Amino acid sequence: MLIYPGMTALDLVGPEQVFGYLGNVHIELVAKTKDLVRSDTAVSIQPTKTFADCADPVDILFVGGGAEGTVAVMKDAETLDFLSRKAKTAKLVTSVCTGSMILGAAGLLRGYKATSHWSVRDFLPLLGAELVVNRVVEDRNRITSGGITAGIDFGLRVAAQLRGEDYARFLELALEYDPQPPYGTGTPEKAPPAVQKMSRGAFDPLRTAVREAALEARKKWAS
Amino acid sequence: MLIYPGMTALDLVGPEQVFGYLGNVHIELVAKTKDLVRSDTAVSIQPTKTFADCADPVDILFVGGGAEGTVAVMKDAETLDFLSRKAKTAKLVTSVCTGSMILGAAGLLRGYKATSHWSVRDFLPLLGAELVVNRVVEDRNRITSGGITAGIDFGLRVAAQLRGEDYARFLELALEYDPQPPYGTGTPEKAPPAVQKMSRGAFDPLRTAVREAALEARKKWAS
Repeated sequence: MLIYPGMTALDLVGPEQVFGYLGNVHIELVAKTKDLVRSDTAVSIQPTKTFADCADPVDILFVGGGAEGTVAVMKDAETLDFLSRKAKTAKLVTSVCTGSMILGAAGLLRGYKATSHWSVRDFLPLLGAELVVNRVVEDRNRITSGGITAGIDFGLRVAAQLRGEDYARFLELALEYDPQPPYGTGTPEKAPPAVQKMSRGAFDPLRTAVREAALEARKKWAS
Repeated sequence: MLIYPGMTALDLVGPEQVFGYLGNVHIELVAKTKDLVRSDTAVSIQPTKTFADCADPVDILFVGGGAEGTVAVMKDAETLDFLSRKAKTAKLVTSVCTGSMILGAAGLLRGYKATSHWSVRDFLPLLGAELVVNRVVEDRNRITSGGITAGIDFGLRVAAQLRGEDYARFLELALEYDPQPPYGTGTPEKAPPAVQKMSRGAFDPLRTAVREAALEARKKWAS
């Protein structure tokens, strides 16, 4: 599981908590260096491996999302190269939220169906992917997910692949995953106009930055 | 937000992510010392304050849950004393999952309605609380929540108190919180018999340890 400055901690911790309870999975949190990684909130997480000492091959490659930090990684040759190398032999190449923009910038979603956080998912075709609007999208060994909280649904679906459906059902119970969103405004379609307007203001700068980073990434593949 | 060895990272990160996006909240992750805090999975989180240098008063006191680590905190006089002192002046005293067992052990739920992770919530009356089976339970300035993923619902409800309902609706959208639990087995009542049986085996040792710690805590109040 890649970690990087500015990541959204919940993108990582949702599925990590599920994988951690599987019992048959060894998790490493991999970063460029062993320095603490500050998320986009107050949480800072300790890497357990660096790119240099990460196991090879890995079974599951995972990338979570974020905002400015994610755009920086979309432009970072060292991280994109690390992901490309690991993806060659990984059994599953996966993401939550804007993590799919990083996979896409590494060229790893070309020709695949994929999804992302609703605010930027329409840019997936710029990265050679076919956008499918679903909470979790599987295409061959690529599994991409919607924004932030979709990581829990993603984690449980992967859990079923790794340890069977009964164990995944047990984990859904262990996590008491019987969600009660207070407002029912969790997708743009379900949000009232005032909230949609608030969102456009909040996410427009990220959209501009992601689009620009996606166009840059494409240029590199072409050259 | 208290952090301690063996905590369930998702109990913390669910609400922390929401609070972090509010913009008008200053978050500190408080532990006994500045040593990295290892969760019950691979995630280790850096405290930002110690008990000694934590602000006084705090507006919101928060305690997440866990398993063995939580039972250890239920018996730890230094942590219980810290929580009791902070609770005296906090505007909100809150928990997710078995975090309410820690609040309870500190005597902070006596005479309050409260909830907890389903596996141990029936022990709340041992700690002087009245069990209410709900995802989030508010009683005066105590807000307790169900297991692990209930922290997201809790976070959004507190967000509405801190910055209004429209902003909370916006955050529900920003988190793309339109959950799709793959199995619908997130409560004991909804779980099929095979999963219930699996759960009893998995949670019985925790139940025994929590009950014993609750009985010990009561003795201290009496003396």
